[in-house]
Amino acid sequence: MPIGDEEYMRMAIQLATFATGRTSPNPLVGAVLVKGNRIVGFGAHLQSGKKHAEIHALDMAADDAFESTLYVTLEPCAHYGKTPPCAHALVKAGIQRAVIAMRDPFSLVAGKGIAILRDAGITVEVGLLESEARSLNKIYLHYIEHQRPFVTLKLAASMDGWIATTDGTPLALTGTEAQRETHQLRNQVDAIMVGVNTIIQDNPQLTTRQIANGRNPIRYIFDHMLRTPVGARVVTDQAVSTVILCSPTADPTKAEELRACGVEVVHLHSLEEDEMIREALALMGERGLRHVLLEGGSTLAQAFLDAQAVDEVWMFHAPVFLGSGWPTLKQSHQSSGQSFPIRLKDIVRKTIGADELTIGKPVYTDETLLD
Amino acid sequence: MPIGDEEYMRMAIQLATFATGRTSPNPLVGAVLVKGNRIVGFGAHLQSGKKHAEIHALDMAADDAFESTLYVTLEPCAHYGKTPPCAHALVKAGIQRAVIAMRDPFSLVAGKGIAILRDAGITVEVGLLESEARSLNKIYLHYIEHQRPFVTLKLAASMDGWIATTDGTPLALTGTEAQRETHQLRNQVDAIMVGVNTIIQDNPQLTTRQIANGRNPIRYIFDHMLRTPVGARVVTDQAVSTVILCSPTADPTKAEELRACGVEVVHLHSLEEDEMIREALALMGERGLRHVLLEGGSTLAQAFLDAQAVDEVWMFHAPVFLGSGWPTLKQSHQSSGQSFPIRLKDIVRKTIGADELTIGKPVYTDETLLD
Repeated sequence: MPIGDEEYMRMAIQLATFATGRTSPNPLVGAVLVKGNRIVGFGAHLQSGKKHAEIHALDMAADDAFESTLYVTLEPCAHYGKTPPCAHALVKAGIQRAVIAMRDPFSLVAGKGIAILRDAGITVEVGLLESEARSLNKIYLHYIEHQRPFVTLKLAASMDGWIATTDGTPLALTGTEAQRETHQLRNQVDAIMVGVNTIIQDNPQLTTRQIANGRNPIRYIFDHMLRTPVGARVVTDQAVSTVILCSPTADPTKAEELRACGVEVVHLHSLEEDEMIREALALMGERGLRHVLLEGGSTLAQAFLDAQAVDEVWMFHAPVFLGSGWPTLKQSHQSSGQSFPIRLKDIVRKTIGADELTIGKPVYTDETLLD
Repeated sequence: MPIGDEEYMRMAIQLATFATGRTSPNPLVGAVLVKGNRIVGFGAHLQSGKKHAEIHALDMAADDAFESTLYVTLEPCAHYGKTPPCAHALVKAGIQRAVIAMRDPFSLVAGKGIAILRDAGITVEVGLLESEARSLNKIYLHYIEHQRPFVTLKLAASMDGWIATTDGTPLALTGTEAQRETHQLRNQVDAIMVGVNTIIQDNPQLTTRQIANGRNPIRYIFDHMLRTPVGARVVTDQAVSTVILCSPTADPTKAEELRACGVEVVHLHSLEEDEMIREALALMGERGLRHVLLEGGSTLAQAFLDAQAVDEVWMFHAPVFLGSGWPTLKQSHQSSGQSFPIRLKDIVRKTIGADELTIGKPVYTDETLLD
């Protein structure tokens, strides 16, 4: 029973998703090899530095790869990175046709992989299920376009917009299901970021705990004046590395104290909040971090939104009215608030236990909501 | 093809819903008469003072009512109100069996209708689809139990819990679909209530406009010191009557001025906010108002929640972050805030255009959310 091109490509996309959150800084890629309406090989890129999807599929197919058709979610690579170029391996294996969901915008590939296949006489078709393939690699594509990590801001508030009591006492607003959803998100990102006030008030671990075999994201603390206590869990627990980003004027002695505890301290060059945020994200991007979860602090959340540095918001609303409290977002003395109001687009809503989750992309415009 | 008891009762419930918002202070009732697996008559109570559901069904059935089975969503009445008792009419028509979804808790009926039928030799079964029937008449049943109207509080806020700019400038946060949903709600309630600040700031009409053949609820303004301007739309437009509830100490001259414009002014006896709210609701209940929509003002909303006088919340969240602003709920100098936190139960969520609607019943407890 013959299956069509689209079904094979859907299989390749599904295979790619098996490695979600595990291939950074590389994209997710899946591949299927078909010969005479029979699948002869398939694979996915599972981890940076390890074999690419096409190579796994070729290995599985062995001699059957000859005169087969490849279905792959991203253009095969053309460069020597941690592995040799896949385009050469595909030519060598003698495949007949390549169906590619999308061109790889990464400058070292960007059409060169397709050219190698075509030059070898292979029939190449590009664009099947392209939008699904783009959505699969939104994190990777965001980096190629912006040279900084994709930032997901997670917030949780009461129906009337408070996150804690007026004096800052934290509340267990959302239920266990929402907390598990947050840990699932931590399990997929490369880094988690909070402000120093969150460290001082809540002393959180910021690790992935409620997921079997979860991975801990690297912890980044935004801490202008190095107020992180040396006894904080993120400093002492050794669960995963911690990086503290501070102002150029922060106390060098305190920096040394923290370094002695095994924490990395980075003095940023900028003094102005928007610039500090951009510098921090550029640094994280250079280090191969492609997805950052911004999880703590109404001040840091407001600063990132104000700097137009949030790419996606996860907003939980618990079905509770507090009547008064600490606001979801809080303007610091540095932030201008000029980016607000910020409307969300591409909204997805989910009911998580008793709580409501709204996921959307911020639109930073001057649009006025005034009547 | 025979249909079962449950299907006939579902039909009766559906017929009852045709008059939603139109029978107050009476309940919604639907009735179906079946003889030999053939529907011989059906009806619904359409308006207070008009025929009851059973009578419409008997009229339709004429002679076929003899030895038929009645399916009715509420116990037939046993008292002379605006119409003669249905139980007598059913006995006279010679029905054989009566399937009744629920007993009527109203003191003038409360089992007496069932007794009349049984005494006449009619087989009576009570309780089929009772919870559906209860839900159909939640407004009516609430009044029987509490002797005051069911209060629906409608709120609309940004993702971060603000309803206007910090200086109080109102914002068009929710979309046209949410506004239409609000007008649909206005179309179903008996009265709409706002605080005087809403009248002064927004000068609203508080009428049902976006619904074809919509009905305007009676307008109630909570206005301690009679600050309602004589030029306000609710005073001048004559669209539907307006009642202003004020403190016992409010200026009698201003009261006369407003009365001269055709507005009713009621001086409440209480000075304390919680008591004023209870007195207002008792008054509205005596006047036959069974469902009140509380629609305007963060101060009035907080006062009603604090007085534990809200029975249902409709909370719209627009997918917008304002960063700062006027809060959803605002404590007055009189309110204690002691009823908070207030958790919602029996939650229903709907996506209305780009906005999210959460409907739930407040639970007023001392439950603490502290970690």
